[in-house]
Amino acid sequence: MAKAKNILFIMFDQLRWDYLSCYGHPHLQTPNMDRLAAMGVRFDRAYVQSTICGSSRMSTYTGRYVQSHGASWNNIPLKVGELTMGDHLRARGMGCWLVGKTHMMADAEGMARLGIEADSVIGARVAECGFDVFERDDGMRPEGPDGMYDEGGALAYNDYLRSKGYQSENPWHDHANSGIDEDGNVLSAWFLKNSNLPANIAEEDSETPYMTRRGMAFIESQGDQPWCCHLSYIKPHWPYIVPEPYASMYGPQDFLRPVRSEEERANAHPVMKAFMDSKVGQAFSRDDVRNAVLPAYMGLIKQCDDQMGVLFDWLERTGRMQDTMIVLTADHGDFMGDHWMGEKQFFHDASARVPLIVYDPSPEADATRGTVCDELVQSIDLLPTFYEVADGHIDEIAHVAEGKSLRPILHGTADAPLHDFVISEYDYAATPMAERLGVSVREAVLFMVATKEWKMVHSEGGFRPILFDLVNDPDELVDLGGSPDHTDIIDEMYAHLFKWTRRVSQRTTRSKAQLEEMRTAAARKGILLGVYDEDEAPLELTVRYRGRKAADKRGEV
Amino acid sequence: MAKAKNILFIMFDQLRWDYLSCYGHPHLQTPNMDRLAAMGVRFDRAYVQSTICGSSRMSTYTGRYVQSHGASWNNIPLKVGELTMGDHLRARGMGCWLVGKTHMMADAEGMARLGIEADSVIGARVAECGFDVFERDDGMRPEGPDGMYDEGGALAYNDYLRSKGYQSENPWHDHANSGIDEDGNVLSAWFLKNSNLPANIAEEDSETPYMTRRGMAFIESQGDQPWCCHLSYIKPHWPYIVPEPYASMYGPQDFLRPVRSEEERANAHPVMKAFMDSKVGQAFSRDDVRNAVLPAYMGLIKQCDDQMGVLFDWLERTGRMQDTMIVLTADHGDFMGDHWMGEKQFFHDASARVPLIVYDPSPEADATRGTVCDELVQSIDLLPTFYEVADGHIDEIAHVAEGKSLRPILHGTADAPLHDFVISEYDYAATPMAERLGVSVREAVLFMVATKEWKMVHSEGGFRPILFDLVNDPDELVDLGGSPDHTDIIDEMYAHLFKWTRRVSQRTTRSKAQLEEMRTAAARKGILLGVYDEDEAPLELTVRYRGRKAADKRGEV
Repeated sequence: MAKAKNILFIMFDQLRWDYLSCYGHPHLQTPNMDRLAAMGVRFDRAYVQSTICGSSRMSTYTGRYVQSHGASWNNIPLKVGELTMGDHLRARGMGCWLVGKTHMMADAEGMARLGIEADSVIGARVAECGFDVFERDDGMRPEGPDGMYDEGGALAYNDYLRSKGYQSENPWHDHANSGIDEDGNVLSAWFLKNSNLPANIAEEDSETPYMTRRGMAFIESQGDQPWCCHLSYIKPHWPYIVPEPYASMYGPQDFLRPVRSEEERANAHPVMKAFMDSKVGQAFSRDDVRNAVLPAYMGLIKQCDDQMGVLFDWLERTGRMQDTMIVLTADHGDFMGDHWMGEKQFFHDASARVPLIVYDPSPEADATRGTVCDELVQSIDLLPTFYEVADGHIDEIAHVAEGKSLRPILHGTADAPLHDFVISEYDYAATPMAERLGVSVREAVLFMVATKEWKMVHSEGGFRPILFDLVNDPDELVDLGGSPDHTDIIDEMYAHLFKWTRRVSQRTTRSKAQLEEMRTAAARKGILLGVYDEDEAPLELTVRYRGRKAADKRGEV
Repeated sequence: MAKAKNILFIMFDQLRWDYLSCYGHPHLQTPNMDRLAAMGVRFDRAYVQSTICGSSRMSTYTGRYVQSHGASWNNIPLKVGELTMGDHLRARGMGCWLVGKTHMMADAEGMARLGIEADSVIGARVAECGFDVFERDDGMRPEGPDGMYDEGGALAYNDYLRSKGYQSENPWHDHANSGIDEDGNVLSAWFLKNSNLPANIAEEDSETPYMTRRGMAFIESQGDQPWCCHLSYIKPHWPYIVPEPYASMYGPQDFLRPVRSEEERANAHPVMKAFMDSKVGQAFSRDDVRNAVLPAYMGLIKQCDDQMGVLFDWLERTGRMQDTMIVLTADHGDFMGDHWMGEKQFFHDASARVPLIVYDPSPEADATRGTVCDELVQSIDLLPTFYEVADGHIDEIAHVAEGKSLRPILHGTADAPLHDFVISEYDYAATPMAERLGVSVREAVLFMVATKEWKMVHSEGGFRPILFDLVNDPDELVDLGGSPDHTDIIDEMYAHLFKWTRRVSQRTTRSKAQLEEMRTAAARKGILLGVYDEDEAPLELTVRYRGRKAADKRGEV
């Protein structure tokens, strides 16, 4: 083993933390992900900065909280100028490449304002959140009366499918994400009742194996230059459907029971109620929906795990396992009907907590292999970790990147927890819930602050807080936000949140070292302040303004 | 009178609010500024967002709090991508021009990263905080062993002076900002003891009259196209020195007594003490310094006022008084030894409160001419005001601009105060005080939150708050921050600050209207969520995914 030279940064979309066997799923076996955990550190309290794909990813890719970068919901563009993982790693001589999904929405207006052409090298990176693109596949090619959600979605993948004989204008939909009946009718997995059909595609042509091969092709294409590869899978994200043999692998006997209670629904905080009352909340509260979707979701995860087996074996064979840090994580989870909610949203662990496994080949990490870290970590901690792999010092980027390096944990040298608390955010201004709750677009925001013992959710707009006791109620079924016995805890959680909101997050144009240097720079450039006469200033400054001769006003001597 | 078509946005640098006769100075008569107040509205509680030139101006020019734009001290560059007054007004068809000072430091690193050339139209605007430049004169040309503080400072002005026969390499220093003795020795006003000498320059060639003429030249150059002209004077900012006749106009009998007490010095809060102990604090606590500087400072203001007379007469003659909104304000004040401090810094009214007079030629403003507005307003309120003059609706920019339009006040239609509280900020990470106080670069920040009744200063780094009772102690001599009788007030002020720090400030790439539109957009682009079967989705969506035919997997029918 040697020091990590490269980084393979694997992300699954919507992979719930507790659907891996190493995280405790009793029926879904993920031996390959578990194998990575046995080789590295499994983080048991990893939180994402937002439970919405785009926002969570923008935080991971910039290393900054959502309140700092502002891309607070899907399709709210990341503003031009935000520094990214790509900017930081390339500055250290490490390439930073995308294979798969980012959910990045380019700030086209900002780019036009600044004259940045989308087809220039700089423009392409700005538009892709700092990555160089080996292949972008945001994993979706939906079609609607107003056009496509993502015009560039799954283009190369569709070409691949057509080259393999899938004859359709949109084989992504008609084959990879639909079933078929005996009459040849496409049964779209946009309709959840079709989720338990086998996808109408050969397994090896479905999205996850395809993307694994693209990842290996990227790695193969690289020479000696160090690289960070963001291998970013769309699955197990919806449309929920998987080909055989995975389609038939799991049934109700394998499901986790939905974590919910009648009481939590009956007494729900108004904001939580709005999420329960949303279309996805109502849908996933239904047994028929869960029964149709869960076998597909679990099958998709099993397929992901098998593909990790393919990938890890290949890395072993090619020697890359010796010099490559491997990170496996997700952008958020999936409620699957827990708490009467569906999809990813809100802040229960089903959604905000993610699997995170980090394998570091360095000998320094030998002591921690196979261990589980119970400390709070955040997805924004990845960027500083990667920066250290690229031989950077985190002080150089700490004025921009808001996370902390995981390296002390990986090397067993951490002498204090990384974080006293973690933060996650949700902006529902662009959803119908804002209207239903009667809050303005500026107030439709939620903040989660969590310690190892407590999780509080603050909603702007005049609502009381929501509070869960993670020690005595790990299922987060009892909201103590209105409990008079918990005002001290609530005050403490608000103190954490307040401290966090006061942070310096936008002073990104001067580093710590530069600020310290500025303490004396003005004087050395001739600015004298509070100096009454020459004797009070250092001679080297004073002398500049001394002994000069001038004519009297306009030339009279 | 007609609706304002143009905006003349006049800023003086370091002009203390209470040094105008209309604001109550008993000895310094400013009849021309007073005349503008008689024609418009004089705001009596106007606060700047920072008491440091550059940061205050970046807030005014972007319409955003310092915590939002991040340029939190002089020479911390405003990051590329920040939207400015120029961007907003040009989008409405109004030019936005600079004549004078901005204290803008371009984000050269960010510009290079994004490939923005400084000599392109876009690059020049980005580098100049969104202004098109008629003449930039940051008003300083100091010289030090490490070069000049501002390489481009006073270039055109120095050329002008040389063309008028001032023979010197740096006539800005040797003539405009120095005295002279009988032997022809230059007596630099960098040394405060020289401040009470007459500047070695003909009055009409000194900076203030020069800049007035440049402002008139700009206005003359404009055709019918609406313009906003930022006529931005360096004076009465240091170096403190003024030519005759102003140099001899004021003496100790005309001074305001220093507002300070032995008690406040003896019991000073550690952060306030650090400011008192700074070089400028110590200097301006000395009578010899005040006696040398105040006659110059007052003379400079008198000269500014006379120039306003020249300018306003010219505007009357040319008809511009009929179609031009005129704003007169400052970027911050000057302690002049009050509270044992010097310069601008910290948050006493001497520094954070500024004069603000707004003249609106519209008939709608007739009802408020000559009135005084006692409501809290902020310098970031100017941008939305200007945007309305340019016929924009503030909802269009409210996702970026954080202030509120003053128009309801100017037109007498305001039915509620604009602000419940105002905020000002100070970042001393780049000063030696941070080291002296033992706080890190991330913690060396201060927040002022003020209502009409109270002013609280919060210091990061574990200090208790500072509190002044503005009703019973308008001189801000008694710090109640440690008073057990004031914990409720302190809690209330902290609640204001907390509410403010939680604001949405970075979601600048989507407007209110766009966010509202997004509430239904995803579905109309083919995304179906929580839809079990076709009957649950609107027909126009469902139909896209229905009735398709496909072959079975790889071509088998």
